Amino acid sequence: MRIATIEHGGSTTAVRVDEGRLTPIDGYADAGELLATGRWEQLAAEASGPSITASDAVFLPPVLEPGKILCIGLNYRKHILEMGRELPEYPSVFAKFPETLTGAAADVESNPLDSAMDWEGELAFVIGDRAYRVDETAAESCIAGYTVANDISMRSWQNRTPEWLQGKMWARTTPVGPVLVTRDEFDLSSAVLRTTVNGETVQEEELSDLLFSPAQLIAYLSQILPLNPGDLVLTGTPGGVGHARRPQMYLHEGDTVEVEITGLGAVRNRITAPA
Amino acid sequence: MRIATIEHGGSTTAVRVDEGRLTPIDGYADAGELLATGRWEQLAAEASGPSITASDAVFLPPVLEPGKILCIGLNYRKHILEMGRELPEYPSVFAKFPETLTGAAADVESNPLDSAMDWEGELAFVIGDRAYRVDETAAESCIAGYTVANDISMRSWQNRTPEWLQGKMWARTTPVGPVLVTRDEFDLSSAVLRTTVNGETVQEEELSDLLFSPAQLIAYLSQILPLNPGDLVLTGTPGGVGHARRPQMYLHEGDTVEVEITGLGAVRNRITAPA
Repeated sequence: MRIATIEHGGSTTAVRVDEGRLTPIDGYADAGELLATGRWEQLAAEASGPSITASDAVFLPPVLEPGKILCIGLNYRKHILEMGRELPEYPSVFAKFPETLTGAAADVESNPLDSAMDWEGELAFVIGDRAYRVDETAAESCIAGYTVANDISMRSWQNRTPEWLQGKMWARTTPVGPVLVTRDEFDLSSAVLRTTVNGETVQEEELSDLLFSPAQLIAYLSQILPLNPGDLVLTGTPGGVGHARRPQMYLHEGDTVEVEITGLGAVRNRITAPA
Repeated sequence: MRIATIEHGGSTTAVRVDEGRLTPIDGYADAGELLATGRWEQLAAEASGPSITASDAVFLPPVLEPGKILCIGLNYRKHILEMGRELPEYPSVFAKFPETLTGAAADVESNPLDSAMDWEGELAFVIGDRAYRVDETAAESCIAGYTVANDISMRSWQNRTPEWLQGKMWARTTPVGPVLVTRDEFDLSSAVLRTTVNGETVQEEELSDLLFSPAQLIAYLSQILPLNPGDLVLTGTPGGVGHARRPQMYLHEGDTVEVEITGLGAVRNRITAPA
């Protein structure tokens, strides 16, 4: 099943997505509210009102205000090596905030304070069942579904200090979506992530290159604090970021950056002038 | 004025604090809900129902679920020097999450996965008015009030990777409170922060040693994303953390750690066995 959150007719609603038709799941303003019910699969499956044509809707991040957004750095073997690092024993973890998220097709403003705006195509997942101190086996079933993210990063601010956060939390710079694909419909082992800038492929990697799997990440993070329904986890980016290229390559006004993952769809965003 | 959030009679409520008497601000389950109204000062001042004796109440973090918790590292000149670093041009920024917070007098469980549990006494402040791309002059007035925090840190996990977050976000390890003291009643320039462990002073510093002031931090952070009412900012810790002492000194079961700031009160927490 595919679930999304759309803006339509002046408000937002969770919808079930079936081949271009969107069926509102009445009473739930986003997938976050739906997930919080604990019976989201049933509610989504049973939704049966009048549907909306996908092309008439604006896709928002599936969960508008995740209680937590946890992000993993250095989680693809080849990307770790291209950044000149050794394979780590533990995941690197940083955060984002709801204000940082934006829609799968939203414009992203360029940043007058940092010209080193870079892409990071990522697999993301959303928690469906609370996970606290769970092992890897139990962790898998806590995932509601998978989606696509672009952790657009301001490299100059990111590298001002060893803590990356200030380069990673700019308002409306992390496209997420367009849909949340439930666990049963996504095959990570055969999926490929591809990032393009103006049609040119800049990242292309099999998700099987992930060093820490989603289940391993949940087992690890849930030792520290509870993961709750609606929490969002970005699993890290593969090789090919602009900052690591020679010459370095960044995003500029007029560019279009797209991240696509087999079976999940794509976030596709134009870089525009600052408002 | 002093505002707090207490647990009393099976529910939580925002209260105004007057010399040991707590007056519920009816209809607001915590200071976060109150701040979100935009007229919190009036509502708090006007509360006039039956009061509660402070000693009958359990003090919770003033804002139970801040939309964002931003933390500053390396923000006291002497602490930066004791950690072997140079004075930075920019603040280091990391995050916490609501699940990480706990009450001013709550027990904090020791951590079976990390024996290097350390204190970090900190001045914290809560946003009252939305701040987005404000300058230092405008920033000051966006602060609702000040409070005390202990950023209890798991040093082994913190140092597993360069990103500190995984040592800083453990569930119920950051005491905050007991009260939110409004801006007009707190004089940062003459305040002293003191941390004690079992009565022994381990940190003692004037807040005037802060490298980046609260207003400077708001001006800096609000370039990146909006700060909203209820958001919590921890401003960093002065010299004297256990990890930097020789020999190193950590918190163990049975210890009591207290952080007090002139005019704000204290968080005082006992370290207990893991549940």
